[in-house]
Amino acid sequence: MTITSFNPPRRTLMGPGPSDISPQVLAALSKPTIGHLDPLFIGMMDELKTLLQYAFQTKNDITMAVSAPGSAGMETCFVNLVEPGETVIVCINGVFGNRMKENVERLGATAVVVDGEWGRAVDPAQLDACLKAHPEAKFVAFVHAETSTGALSDAKTLCAIAKQHDCLTIVDAVTSLGGVELRVDDWQIDAIYSGSQKCLSCVPGLSPVSFSPAAVEKIKARTTKVQSWFLDQTLVMDYWADNAGGKRSYHHTAPVNSLYALHESLLNLYNEGLENAWKRHADQHKALATGLAELGIKFIVPESERLPQLNAVYIPEGIDDVNVRSYLLNEFNLEIGAGLGAFAGKAWRIGLMGYSAKNENVLLCLAALKQALK
Amino acid sequence: MTITSFNPPRRTLMGPGPSDISPQVLAALSKPTIGHLDPLFIGMMDELKTLLQYAFQTKNDITMAVSAPGSAGMETCFVNLVEPGETVIVCINGVFGNRMKENVERLGATAVVVDGEWGRAVDPAQLDACLKAHPEAKFVAFVHAETSTGALSDAKTLCAIAKQHDCLTIVDAVTSLGGVELRVDDWQIDAIYSGSQKCLSCVPGLSPVSFSPAAVEKIKARTTKVQSWFLDQTLVMDYWADNAGGKRSYHHTAPVNSLYALHESLLNLYNEGLENAWKRHADQHKALATGLAELGIKFIVPESERLPQLNAVYIPEGIDDVNVRSYLLNEFNLEIGAGLGAFAGKAWRIGLMGYSAKNENVLLCLAALKQALK
Repeated sequence: MTITSFNPPRRTLMGPGPSDISPQVLAALSKPTIGHLDPLFIGMMDELKTLLQYAFQTKNDITMAVSAPGSAGMETCFVNLVEPGETVIVCINGVFGNRMKENVERLGATAVVVDGEWGRAVDPAQLDACLKAHPEAKFVAFVHAETSTGALSDAKTLCAIAKQHDCLTIVDAVTSLGGVELRVDDWQIDAIYSGSQKCLSCVPGLSPVSFSPAAVEKIKARTTKVQSWFLDQTLVMDYWADNAGGKRSYHHTAPVNSLYALHESLLNLYNEGLENAWKRHADQHKALATGLAELGIKFIVPESERLPQLNAVYIPEGIDDVNVRSYLLNEFNLEIGAGLGAFAGKAWRIGLMGYSAKNENVLLCLAALKQALK
Repeated sequence: MTITSFNPPRRTLMGPGPSDISPQVLAALSKPTIGHLDPLFIGMMDELKTLLQYAFQTKNDITMAVSAPGSAGMETCFVNLVEPGETVIVCINGVFGNRMKENVERLGATAVVVDGEWGRAVDPAQLDACLKAHPEAKFVAFVHAETSTGALSDAKTLCAIAKQHDCLTIVDAVTSLGGVELRVDDWQIDAIYSGSQKCLSCVPGLSPVSFSPAAVEKIKARTTKVQSWFLDQTLVMDYWADNAGGKRSYHHTAPVNSLYALHESLLNLYNEGLENAWKRHADQHKALATGLAELGIKFIVPESERLPQLNAVYIPEGIDDVNVRSYLLNEFNLEIGAGLGAFAGKAWRIGLMGYSAKNENVLLCLAALKQALK
């Protein structure tokens, strides 16, 4: 066996995540590991919770990071809130809406689909009609920022409609958190999950989640056990929250170093300010969009529904998808994303997420694409 | 809000994990993040699989790291292999056997318990009797190295008995992998899971798993979907294994940097040699045991059933558990573990895992304990 230490090059990450990671966050990642029940670590977790509450714009006490990627965060929300036999309205306008449906069905509940167009926002009128036709529904689930298509849905309006029908709301904010406006409390979001490796620009592997008091009440009122022991929030809460006078219960060994990195990346976001971060993403998106138009590259999503942090564009006719992406990677260490699901082979996804959303990345991407398309 | 960057001290980690992490592994952790579908990353994953096969002593093609802690690795084994209505014999001799039972029950299967003594190895005769009484059982599950009590069970014998009754074997090797002899293929283990933060001395957050061809066949023959989308190995295998001519399917975003660290820690183990690592753990354990005897501290587990890497000892009479552990942490930056489950408040667990199993740690621990008990 001739395996040696792995030495990755420095790539510029402009795909659908992971995004570029700042030197401070990488440095935080490799600080000395301490125990997951060390008082200093518990103190760090308390700060992390405060920082997550800021990023989510929530006062929710149950706000934490699931010790696994965003898809585990999604599963955490569904398996804890929804019990077998209950009905969930799932709005699908891309890959991740489909995954929500899978989650609902695998826990023995019923998914009623609001079938939206890929590349468009979820249609509020369609949701309203579906809710009227399904008074038995207890939940509305949708993806705020569809990473597979680059479409941004109007979470505030969708949640308001759900609330008119007394539904709890479950929102996928994997790609939206930190990149576009998101206000968990103001918008009446009951359960939300995100990912560490998108606009937070932390390493992949963690999923921030938050549950409203109504969601916590629903979880506590369960008559069945959560089917996943690992994701059971009634157990995890005892580790993240103070119980019995400050004693933390051991549930599983927290990913200590990754949480250091998340703490640092959220601190960066706090220091920049959420509104400033949202504006930076919007500004860089505009610069990129202008340059792409000059190259004759067209967006999939109509302008008013576009995500600034995830630019899904059609591959120009006659251009070989894989050749171009390999060229960008090999010649310029630049990663852009392939199409996913219905857009596989037809689209590129150019990310401007977190630390990747900066002038030099936009310039490099446009100049490199220009050469690649020659 | 007055939160600043978190700066943990360098602790000496002699609890039940995380263990000390070598400087090379921490350095690998913070190497530049690249995409989870980057060809260079895929190459690194192939090496990682080879290194894991070495550590597990297996040729199993389905050998990989679950993107979450050991408890998710446990759940991965149970929810993929076991279908609702099936019967699993679960040997319980500590906290983690109980957790196995929870896993079996939460997926709608039946757990038949072999009720063992805490602090002792699983009794092969008891397992045999149970299997004779339960011919409907399809699986035998047990913990190789019980982290809660420090007992080592005879995995080879237990698996041989299970095989006599045509059962598949599911083994918890969270604390054993890299610390004591473990031979997946020779011992006929069908599904095994471990943790990154014990004797591999990697950061917490990953769970190496491996499935035998018989286990893979069982998974493929399922008539029901795996209840967890995130842990569904039929989907994950498409990411870790070559399918359709080398194309990797996206399942979830892999924890890129943590996998760098696992690669490096497994490379360290390979370069040292498994047998040498086992011997080092045994040698350091002997030195520690001699010193503890001089301090009048008694082991929970009989000598022949002791884990070298996890030394569970009774707290001497009249000594305050929390005071001593706080003193060690505050005065010497030394972490030892508290008792768990039935041993909470009655025992300490002194870890000698991976990079922590070295002369200087044994000396520090004995000298510091001596001062603490004065």
